[in-house]
Amino acid sequence: MPLLFVLAESALERVPKELWRHPAVVRTARARRKRPGAMLLDRSLHHPAMRNLPNASRRGRPDLVHTTLLAVMGSPLNKEGLLRVYVHTIDDHVIEVDPSTRLPKNYNRFVGLVEQLYEEGQVPPGGPPLLTIRRETLPELVGRLAPDRVVAFTREGAPRTVEEVMRDLSGLERPMILVGGFPHGHFTDETLALADETACVDPEGLEAWVVASRAVYEFERALCLPEKRLARVGKKDS
Amino acid sequence: MPLLFVLAESALERVPKELWRHPAVVRTARARRKRPGAMLLDRSLHHPAMRNLPNASRRGRPDLVHTTLLAVMGSPLNKEGLLRVYVHTIDDHVIEVDPSTRLPKNYNRFVGLVEQLYEEGQVPPGGPPLLTIRRETLPELVGRLAPDRVVAFTREGAPRTVEEVMRDLSGLERPMILVGGFPHGHFTDETLALADETACVDPEGLEAWVVASRAVYEFERALCLPEKRLARVGKKDS
Repeated sequence: MPLLFVLAESALERVPKELWRHPAVVRTARARRKRPGAMLLDRSLHHPAMRNLPNASRRGRPDLVHTTLLAVMGSPLNKEGLLRVYVHTIDDHVIEVDPSTRLPKNYNRFVGLVEQLYEEGQVPPGGPPLLTIRRETLPELVGRLAPDRVVAFTREGAPRTVEEVMRDLSGLERPMILVGGFPHGHFTDETLALADETACVDPEGLEAWVVASRAVYEFERALCLPEKRLARVGKKDS
Repeated sequence: MPLLFVLAESALERVPKELWRHPAVVRTARARRKRPGAMLLDRSLHHPAMRNLPNASRRGRPDLVHTTLLAVMGSPLNKEGLLRVYVHTIDDHVIEVDPSTRLPKNYNRFVGLVEQLYEEGQVPPGGPPLLTIRRETLPELVGRLAPDRVVAFTREGAPRTVEEVMRDLSGLERPMILVGGFPHGHFTDETLALADETACVDPEGLEAWVVASRAVYEFERALCLPEKRLARVGKKDS
């Protein structure tokens, strides 16, 4: 019944070793009093250092992950316990976000939290974790979660409205959707091979958080959640 | 025909004069090489300085404005030229966002841009402006835009789904919606007096970007925009 939401191939990773000595990295590390390798790669800070990095156009964008997580975690679907959120990263880590997590709305605090997550393996470090991270490829994640259907949202997919896609998924036990967590380009063939269906919901490329918030909302609509929750207005649990 | 979207009473302002000498403000000003009064007030940095500030719980949250603007500016409705976006601030400024604006996705760059906007009155400073700012109250803004109907989204409103609200607005010439740009509390009575209708779309308080993205999306749905745009897939303008 829960919707499994995967932000896939996300442009999130720590500063890779080959950039640790670059002046732009050294400077930000010093200002933040962190080891270069303990910081997230961030194009807004490390652009000059990324010039010779392979695949650079799909790396170093924790801001996209943050905005998309805010968009889905604040949904009524999540408040109902019907959403499971996973961030798969370009360097094959998977971050699992507990539904009760109240993520920092401030970007810099989010970055600090994810850096702590990479250091500690979970946050908060003691007690029940809100965020956990593990080394895992996308095929491994899909294998572990065992969805009964996987839909990948991609401009290269078959034209369908978000409403149609999500209505079809809403009757399943463990439906999964994949949204790309990168600024440009398309899913790799390896990712596409995991999808039972690909869907193009708009002729222009839409940002990850736009697609994500609409998919979550249409899943709610298919479950009549807006009406069901409104029926509670004024009742005691509101 | 365009939807007039107003983020109202937004928790966005520059550091007020009474805080210019507070150590937390002086420290961040020095680090950023800015005058204290040229910086945005930001709770994540200036929390200790805000302790004695009147109405502090509704101030100093440019992050909420940023996330909400990203949510609506990336919509197909905006790409179609059918969305007008205004940020009314708690200290009675109005920022107008040109539909063609590609806002910085990075929060720190957004803050820098808005700081430049306050300094210059528009950005970019030369040439056609993407963002403009003026002193204006919310009643003045509503008077200037002359909407034919105003709906305020608030937990204290009448229970209605976003779909119902936006479907009713979609047939009008100049419909306007108000979404609160503050983290807690409710619209002031002055704001509520501007609304023809108040709508409560969920029993729990939803974050501004959640309400905003759903309202914009339901307006698109009422115009059959998802289907119309999909009909263009594969055609030349995609």
